[in-house]
Amino acid sequence: MNLVLGRPMIAREPWIEARTEEIRDTLLAALPHTHHHAELQNFYQHLKDYPLRGGKMLRGRLLLLSTEAHGANYLRGLPCAAALELFQNWVLVHDDIEDGSEERRGAPALHQKIGMPLAVNVGDALHVYMWQLLLDQPRPATPRLDAILDEFLTMIHRTAEGQHLDLTWIRDGCFDIGESEYLEMVTLKTAFYTVVSPLRLGAMCADSDVAAVFQSAGEALGVAFQIRDDVLNLTPAPRYGKEFAGDLYEGKRTAILAHFFATATAGERDEAISVLSKPRHQKTGADVEALLQLLAKCGSLQYAQRLAETHAQKGLASLRQGLEGLPDQIAARKLLGLLETLTSRSQ
Amino acid sequence: MNLVLGRPMIAREPWIEARTEEIRDTLLAALPHTHHHAELQNFYQHLKDYPLRGGKMLRGRLLLLSTEAHGANYLRGLPCAAALELFQNWVLVHDDIEDGSEERRGAPALHQKIGMPLAVNVGDALHVYMWQLLLDQPRPATPRLDAILDEFLTMIHRTAEGQHLDLTWIRDGCFDIGESEYLEMVTLKTAFYTVVSPLRLGAMCADSDVAAVFQSAGEALGVAFQIRDDVLNLTPAPRYGKEFAGDLYEGKRTAILAHFFATATAGERDEAISVLSKPRHQKTGADVEALLQLLAKCGSLQYAQRLAETHAQKGLASLRQGLEGLPDQIAARKLLGLLETLTSRSQ
Repeated sequence: MNLVLGRPMIAREPWIEARTEEIRDTLLAALPHTHHHAELQNFYQHLKDYPLRGGKMLRGRLLLLSTEAHGANYLRGLPCAAALELFQNWVLVHDDIEDGSEERRGAPALHQKIGMPLAVNVGDALHVYMWQLLLDQPRPATPRLDAILDEFLTMIHRTAEGQHLDLTWIRDGCFDIGESEYLEMVTLKTAFYTVVSPLRLGAMCADSDVAAVFQSAGEALGVAFQIRDDVLNLTPAPRYGKEFAGDLYEGKRTAILAHFFATATAGERDEAISVLSKPRHQKTGADVEALLQLLAKCGSLQYAQRLAETHAQKGLASLRQGLEGLPDQIAARKLLGLLETLTSRSQ
Repeated sequence: MNLVLGRPMIAREPWIEARTEEIRDTLLAALPHTHHHAELQNFYQHLKDYPLRGGKMLRGRLLLLSTEAHGANYLRGLPCAAALELFQNWVLVHDDIEDGSEERRGAPALHQKIGMPLAVNVGDALHVYMWQLLLDQPRPATPRLDAILDEFLTMIHRTAEGQHLDLTWIRDGCFDIGESEYLEMVTLKTAFYTVVSPLRLGAMCADSDVAAVFQSAGEALGVAFQIRDDVLNLTPAPRYGKEFAGDLYEGKRTAILAHFFATATAGERDEAISVLSKPRHQKTGADVEALLQLLAKCGSLQYAQRLAETHAQKGLASLRQGLEGLPDQIAARKLLGLLETLTSRSQ
């Protein structure tokens, strides 16, 4: 079955909508609302810009399911889930600047709306409100707060390291990245905050031990998620929130390109590099179309799709083991189901 | 006495050098050192770039003197002083990007060296290491750690709000800023992290109550410090670390410009705006010279200098009251001396 194009849309269940709303409400409640100074009122509005664009709160929902699977009420994980989504939001504001992105969630990226300098500052402020939300948790109700804070520190360090690798390749025009280098980068940049930390934080919020296998399972699933995201970016689809083929316009390193450079002829590689190395605004639709044809010729999208599936299957198998014996097996199955969807999603 | 040009250079005493080194060593020890991945080793080196440029650690030294004045050994304030300087460093990395600055501490700004995208990411990583340094403090040795963390949250919020006002004026080409608007902006942007929070954090590190007067005294002294910085920027001096008249090239709003716009003729204002509103790289040396002559004609530098002195005197008088009766009066006098120097410094 062609998962890229053939997977049916999964209808959002009401309880998922409710969870998403609860996380967003907790996140928004952690941000400041009114200021007597009109311009600072505008600033407070900018802080809410990305959170109000309706993200899916995937990472927060993962965290809440992990909390439940470990036997606690999901409400105990709610502030932490909202902080994780705040992390996602400030990182996106800064990522969009770093990558020169045009759009985010179907609207202009924040720096395109308010200018780069103000947007850098908005990202910094959101970063601080993330810490505030965590630090405001009463310790008696959150006995493992220190472990949670440590997890956030580690998660952000690894994400920034992965981002550094990615940005350095872009800056230096390195397109010929090997698959293992690519996987090392996305493990740091994506897998930690997307799967490893949500799984671990959920256990901590439930005041439970953290299964060691969450680390390797989360890395495999996070990598599968990112490769899937790379594949979706080059797959026309009406409900995908980013611009079609934006990764090619931005010259982003992906598993798809890693496969292409490992298999293409010297002439094809030169052709691809000549297009990829153009500044974003000099790339034409025809350029990107030519790239897509080169990738198709090498079967790079299909290869990346299989690579995502391999990592997803490996990660899901490990995670099943890690979840065995946890108190709430209904939540554990929902958690597995969500990760299965995320790593083979069609939207 | 003309404090701008006439104040003698103050010889740095050996104990001040030693404190500066201790703060820097503590800061550097909180950053990561080695990574097996060569490119991540480079990343770790970038994190140390600004800290290794030899800042004066003014805010950290203020904090340590406040700790001592409150009767504790300065070592109890050392991690907090280093975290405050880490704050200063990540803010400078991002500020330099936001302001399009060319130089920092006599060398190219970080984004000029490694590119804007990587530098945004370096600032974010430094921000996280700041929190890590604070959170790593053992609670028994730092009984008021929660108050210290709260102070950092408030300090960063206010700094980001002040930065937002400043950046918005620059973006929107608002040059005609009134003095009260300017003072509101610099109170938020500079006074909190430069004086208010160092004074308050020093007391917290000593496990002492925080005198209420530190707030107003710190605001007045922080404002005096910033106006003095604005004046120094337009005063040629061999040891000032930033480029001469960089504020005019960057179109930065200052107390000097606020006075100019309140006193100049309509023709002079138009002339100034036509130069100030040019993009940085279109401003010539002759443009900036013409601006300096307009400011001189209106006596705006002298006015700003007097304004700094008024705020400094008011702040020092309040602070003297706040320090009365504290256990270590030798440290209290050193603290007052440092703030007196900072608010009328010639370097």
